Amino acid sequence: MKETLTAAMSFTIVAQDATSPARAGLLQTPHGPLATPVFMPVGTRATVKSLSPQELKAHGTQIVLGNTYHLYLQPGHELIQRHGGLHRFMAWDKPILTDSGGFQVFSLVHGGIANEIKGRRPLQAQRLPSMVKVKEEGVVFRSYLDGSFHTFTPERSILIQHALGADLILCFDELPSFHDGYEYTAQSMERTHRWAKRCLDYHQQAPSSQALFGIVHGGVFPNLRKESAEYITSLPFEGVCIGGSLGGEKAQMYEVVDMTVPHLPSHLPRHLLGVGDVDDLLEGVKRGIDLFDCVSPTRLARHKTALIRDPARRWHLNVTNAALREDDGPLQEGCPCQTCQTFSRAYIHHLYRSKEILGIRLVSLHNVAFLLNLMEKVRNSLLENRFPALYQEWLGSR
Amino acid sequence: MKETLTAAMSFTIVAQDATSPARAGLLQTPHGPLATPVFMPVGTRATVKSLSPQELKAHGTQIVLGNTYHLYLQPGHELIQRHGGLHRFMAWDKPILTDSGGFQVFSLVHGGIANEIKGRRPLQAQRLPSMVKVKEEGVVFRSYLDGSFHTFTPERSILIQHALGADLILCFDELPSFHDGYEYTAQSMERTHRWAKRCLDYHQQAPSSQALFGIVHGGVFPNLRKESAEYITSLPFEGVCIGGSLGGEKAQMYEVVDMTVPHLPSHLPRHLLGVGDVDDLLEGVKRGIDLFDCVSPTRLARHKTALIRDPARRWHLNVTNAALREDDGPLQEGCPCQTCQTFSRAYIHHLYRSKEILGIRLVSLHNVAFLLNLMEKVRNSLLENRFPALYQEWLGSR
Repeated sequence: MKETLTAAMSFTIVAQDATSPARAGLLQTPHGPLATPVFMPVGTRATVKSLSPQELKAHGTQIVLGNTYHLYLQPGHELIQRHGGLHRFMAWDKPILTDSGGFQVFSLVHGGIANEIKGRRPLQAQRLPSMVKVKEEGVVFRSYLDGSFHTFTPERSILIQHALGADLILCFDELPSFHDGYEYTAQSMERTHRWAKRCLDYHQQAPSSQALFGIVHGGVFPNLRKESAEYITSLPFEGVCIGGSLGGEKAQMYEVVDMTVPHLPSHLPRHLLGVGDVDDLLEGVKRGIDLFDCVSPTRLARHKTALIRDPARRWHLNVTNAALREDDGPLQEGCPCQTCQTFSRAYIHHLYRSKEILGIRLVSLHNVAFLLNLMEKVRNSLLENRFPALYQEWLGSR
Repeated sequence: MKETLTAAMSFTIVAQDATSPARAGLLQTPHGPLATPVFMPVGTRATVKSLSPQELKAHGTQIVLGNTYHLYLQPGHELIQRHGGLHRFMAWDKPILTDSGGFQVFSLVHGGIANEIKGRRPLQAQRLPSMVKVKEEGVVFRSYLDGSFHTFTPERSILIQHALGADLILCFDELPSFHDGYEYTAQSMERTHRWAKRCLDYHQQAPSSQALFGIVHGGVFPNLRKESAEYITSLPFEGVCIGGSLGGEKAQMYEVVDMTVPHLPSHLPRHLLGVGDVDDLLEGVKRGIDLFDCVSPTRLARHKTALIRDPARRWHLNVTNAALREDDGPLQEGCPCQTCQTFSRAYIHHLYRSKEILGIRLVSLHNVAFLLNLMEKVRNSLLENRFPALYQEWLGSR
């Protein structure tokens, strides 16, 4: 079966930074190539919130991420399969990656974990009737929609992802909390390794052009990260993700990446799961990451925030701020996105004040485009041997 | 001043149906021509809800309507003027019509009136702290946003509309209720006539390329409609609207149009205010109406309803209906809009079930395009002398 996979996907490194593990690559998938490093907007429920496939494509989106947990519950993977798979269902003919459902199953229980990792406030998680049993076989969880009980096993996650039909799919993993400590993190990692093997075995039973990525765990512990990286890359995965607990703050997350990447072979694409702040993208690339995903651009838009090129403000502009009321300029001077080319800050401020949907739509588009343009700049700098200069231009001397 | 107006706007009838007052025309405005009969989507707060100017234009929108009441309160006409007027503020370079604010001021008081006229359920109106004093001078009303007190007079309405800078602007009028009876309707009509003259006088003080339309009142009473039509068209307005109470049901609305149009000169464009159901558009055109506006396409989308070509269902499809869950077809077979060309009913059903903004956006686009395409068909049928056949094709033998 391995041959089928390899035939569909291949990864070539086209440029390597001289001063860091940063690299540019080309990842071939059944739905076309990905120029890496790449940021993928998240389309949780088969839609990158408020945006159309046409405008995502027009603004340079190469790949979107769909969430297995949400799509399994609504509308259901079998329905999507009957409608020709996720690409056709959501009218997206470029590459798609689906996650395994593990992250949501666990983060909706622990609540704080996902937020702990990404430095976000807890969202709906804590309000939900959630209950989980983690067993060797898999996980029992309750639907966030109606409280009904469901079971995910490694095999079932892959079955669902096969039905969805994404180009890149992920292994089902357990998500321990940062607070679980060394012992539980080590136990959990070992189970995640056993699950990874089961995912791979199940995946290899059926001919597929989908590429399965393994996920390296081990929390914030160097020896566990090393062990996990070595085990996961000993299996014939097409790519590798850095997942699990990434620590309690950004510095710790960078340390986790630093302690993991040296144990990854250079020929596999590397995905840092769920990370997409401006500085995280630059720091991730610098540490050798090729793929990123994050809900942040569309979530920020729903929380009144546009991305701007201002590190002092943590790249954030509150569009409801009174200072924007009379501001005739674009969200970001020089931004080529349709929002900035067409509308003023004053108009967008008005839309948010008036609670008009178009506001969220325009800022979502800008935020997605902002990160895509950044990543295009990053890639070009790698191709032209000037990544360190670009890094410094954006982040200064850190 | 009249010369300035005439230079900016002109109306030419290019086809006249042989069997009815229906006609096709060409209305020249400072922002380009309108091919009539025309339907104008409503952009209450400087946005046709959820849609971009680019896609409105790509789908054939010729003109949008902005609401003076809402724009005056937020962000304010002076801010919009400072930002180059409503066209530039909302990035819409084709014609715009603004209403006078009268309709909202009164309908937010009476609550039921607007709904009475259009056969709709009351919306937010009844919940609002509203209070009005109608005096000869004008109207005192409370903001729907914060309860603050404001005054609209005929002069102030025109001043605000001058600041907004729409191509077509309307006289400030009082809106009596259908239940007010003959006597009050007659008194109110006379005041509206005096206000119309004041609007015109104020408008003519300042050179302007904006065209001012008068509004014919008189409720459901033939002699009042005749009197109002004759008075309004005796003043040098550039066009005429049919407004005021249009009765309690659609049949009565058609009667009101029937009793009014014969008293209107053929050389002026005629606007039936706030009407835009499929059958109303066809019935209106048949009775000699040139311009229509209505919030219905975007409001229906927010209420889970797509327009389809099925008179038996009153042209409505509930997109959350379980029958759509597995439906792989477009909202409307043969519809050229981007929604129908790209997405299935099953996908749109999923978006609504998931409360995804994109659902409202896609159905809003379809609904607007549906009415625009209908009106294009209507106009072509008039140009090709086959309007009666088209009318029958859509409405059957009524």
